[in-house]
Amino acid sequence: MTGAGKKEVHRRGGLWYLRPMKKIRLLTPGPTAIPESVLSKFAEPVIHHRTSLFEARFKKLQDHLGWLFQTREPVLTLTATGSGAMEAAVANLFSPADEVLVLNLGKFGERWTKLAKTYGLTVHELVVDRGSAADPAEVKRLLTAHPAAKAVLFQASETSTGALNPVKAIVDLCREHGVLSVCDGITAVGILDLPMDDWGIDVLITGSQKALMLPPGLAFIALSARAWQAVAVSKSPRFYFDLTREKKMQEKQQTAWTPAISLIEGGVESLGLLREEGLQTLFARHEVLAKCTREAASALGLELFSKAPSPVLTTVRVPATFSVDQGKAIQKLMQEKYGVIIMGGQDELQGKILRLSHFGYCDVFDVATGIGALELALQELGHSVEFGKGVGAVLKAYRESSR
Amino acid sequence: MTGAGKKEVHRRGGLWYLRPMKKIRLLTPGPTAIPESVLSKFAEPVIHHRTSLFEARFKKLQDHLGWLFQTREPVLTLTATGSGAMEAAVANLFSPADEVLVLNLGKFGERWTKLAKTYGLTVHELVVDRGSAADPAEVKRLLTAHPAAKAVLFQASETSTGALNPVKAIVDLCREHGVLSVCDGITAVGILDLPMDDWGIDVLITGSQKALMLPPGLAFIALSARAWQAVAVSKSPRFYFDLTREKKMQEKQQTAWTPAISLIEGGVESLGLLREEGLQTLFARHEVLAKCTREAASALGLELFSKAPSPVLTTVRVPATFSVDQGKAIQKLMQEKYGVIIMGGQDELQGKILRLSHFGYCDVFDVATGIGALELALQELGHSVEFGKGVGAVLKAYRESSR
Repeated sequence: MTGAGKKEVHRRGGLWYLRPMKKIRLLTPGPTAIPESVLSKFAEPVIHHRTSLFEARFKKLQDHLGWLFQTREPVLTLTATGSGAMEAAVANLFSPADEVLVLNLGKFGERWTKLAKTYGLTVHELVVDRGSAADPAEVKRLLTAHPAAKAVLFQASETSTGALNPVKAIVDLCREHGVLSVCDGITAVGILDLPMDDWGIDVLITGSQKALMLPPGLAFIALSARAWQAVAVSKSPRFYFDLTREKKMQEKQQTAWTPAISLIEGGVESLGLLREEGLQTLFARHEVLAKCTREAASALGLELFSKAPSPVLTTVRVPATFSVDQGKAIQKLMQEKYGVIIMGGQDELQGKILRLSHFGYCDVFDVATGIGALELALQELGHSVEFGKGVGAVLKAYRESSR
Repeated sequence: MTGAGKKEVHRRGGLWYLRPMKKIRLLTPGPTAIPESVLSKFAEPVIHHRTSLFEARFKKLQDHLGWLFQTREPVLTLTATGSGAMEAAVANLFSPADEVLVLNLGKFGERWTKLAKTYGLTVHELVVDRGSAADPAEVKRLLTAHPAAKAVLFQASETSTGALNPVKAIVDLCREHGVLSVCDGITAVGILDLPMDDWGIDVLITGSQKALMLPPGLAFIALSARAWQAVAVSKSPRFYFDLTREKKMQEKQQTAWTPAISLIEGGVESLGLLREEGLQTLFARHEVLAKCTREAASALGLELFSKAPSPVLTTVRVPATFSVDQGKAIQKLMQEKYGVIIMGGQDELQGKILRLSHFGYCDVFDVATGIGALELALQELGHSVEFGKGVGAVLKAYRESSR
């Protein structure tokens, strides 16, 4: 994307007020940057979906998705965003008045609760301090307190706070208590190691505009055999998100409804790139980029907000001396002057935290760019910055990880 | 462009040998990076060139080119690279046995000499120390020594050494002595302020893959009224590069030969972006990015190679302790491990200098990325590097220029 700057240049005191050509760089938790070779797919003619050509392409995507989800179950492709797949999970697994447990770490935990209530379920929440992860001991207590619960709905990584849940521990507890583990992996699949079959995750969900390096428009969901049994007895209403119908169609490399064909073509390309990188390198890359970001924050004197920092995105508190308005100004300045787009906090965290994403089509120099723009913005807003200290920490941490 | 890394990851001593997804970043003096909105033009169907639709698009390009060259003369578009336009200048302006003067600062100065000799001209060279610019006093001496000379052929910026010529002084001297100034602005137009009409430059040349942010394939040349008079009496053979024929055709928004149509479409877009930025901001941006690079080199203890550093690209000597092979390894490591492509020295400068470009679709964070990769490579090869020192100098210089 290109956004050209204003036309005028003013000289004041011998210094240029530059409004130069500005590159837009997305360091946001979705949409994320898209590789050029994927973008070029969208310039190709759209093939018709009721053709053997489409079926061959879709089969390739399905194969890639099974690899990414680390599962032998079918990974279903829905033309919707991640929230649509979350709704599909709720609508297909449960019946009205069923009890479910929700681990509420932030905005996306709240979404599970709202969805479940919309479908008439009874929700018992574990509300966790913003920035923290669920404590397995607390999850166990919740499970014990509500023996009738059918499932635990949770996020692998909570995007609003940057907290990483102990996914394996949660899934283990679900199995011990005979309930389904329903994992929103929207900003996690392809970033964190979440071996669905090995760990016994019952439902795993992601969206196209995250680690999959695609525009928004597709969601992906896989269910374990145990979850499919729950679908068989669920009585909630569903039509567009009817997973049984989708499964039947997708076994024949077709979809129940007209799919987002160009995104499927793009997905074959983007997942091909991830597959070439390899799962372990993919996960290691994200671990390293997160470490680089945390080291940079520390070098710049910024406190980490999350007590359980995720490899997906790093949340830091704005400098203690900054007002809420100054806090908001950091992100605004980075975006408007430098074209580097990060996210601030939402709701009560507005102006108090910054959320720096480092996943998808992202490498060490993208992280360094984000930190460089942050240095420039912080200094311009009055924070004491020694230029290069944050970026230097990024390079150093990267070098130490790859030596 | 995307190049995925190797598939395997090895753990040794607890550290990952990462071969993660690699982004390719061109920090070379052409081809240069291409804006996404320009790339997307190349995905559009090719229109036929003998149509009014093409003529309307070509008229737009011609208008943009006149703006970029700062001239009211027609700027001719040739389907060739910059060397083709250099040949067009020689073949159209002179006759066999004509005398010309060449300012030879490096590889591209040498190209003028070779071309002139190919067409049977007598060449008198001012050979300048590699890294230096032409001294106007020396140019004056050369002009005085060869009163029969018809022209001075020179580069605005010599890409092989990173030296910037004193273009205005050279052009002024040419006018005083009644000879033509033939300026290779291939890596200069759209980077340096070269007001063709104001300064009275007689021939100005550029290529598409430089500041114009396009793939290679088009060259552009403009001639003053005085230069067109020379064309009228020139007797050198020319056919494909017959500028008189091109001028006649291009006055009607057509070309003598089938043009590179998609590049012309791309040029309308890319020059539109430059025009939105504005000439003065465009030149100021390049000045600032060059300053950032020089400050970074100095912070990393690298000596500038050129005594007349150009805003186009910065040449630095490899650390004095490095052998030629180690010098070559810097560029190789940056490219192979980090995907950041810079150029080394050519011929006798191989392994002795690095050439860091900072023009075209390039902003402060691209410069910072180049310097970051250079820090990583230098440290890995044994040079003492405090990570972030070079990048910090980039950010600091940028901040000071834009405040």
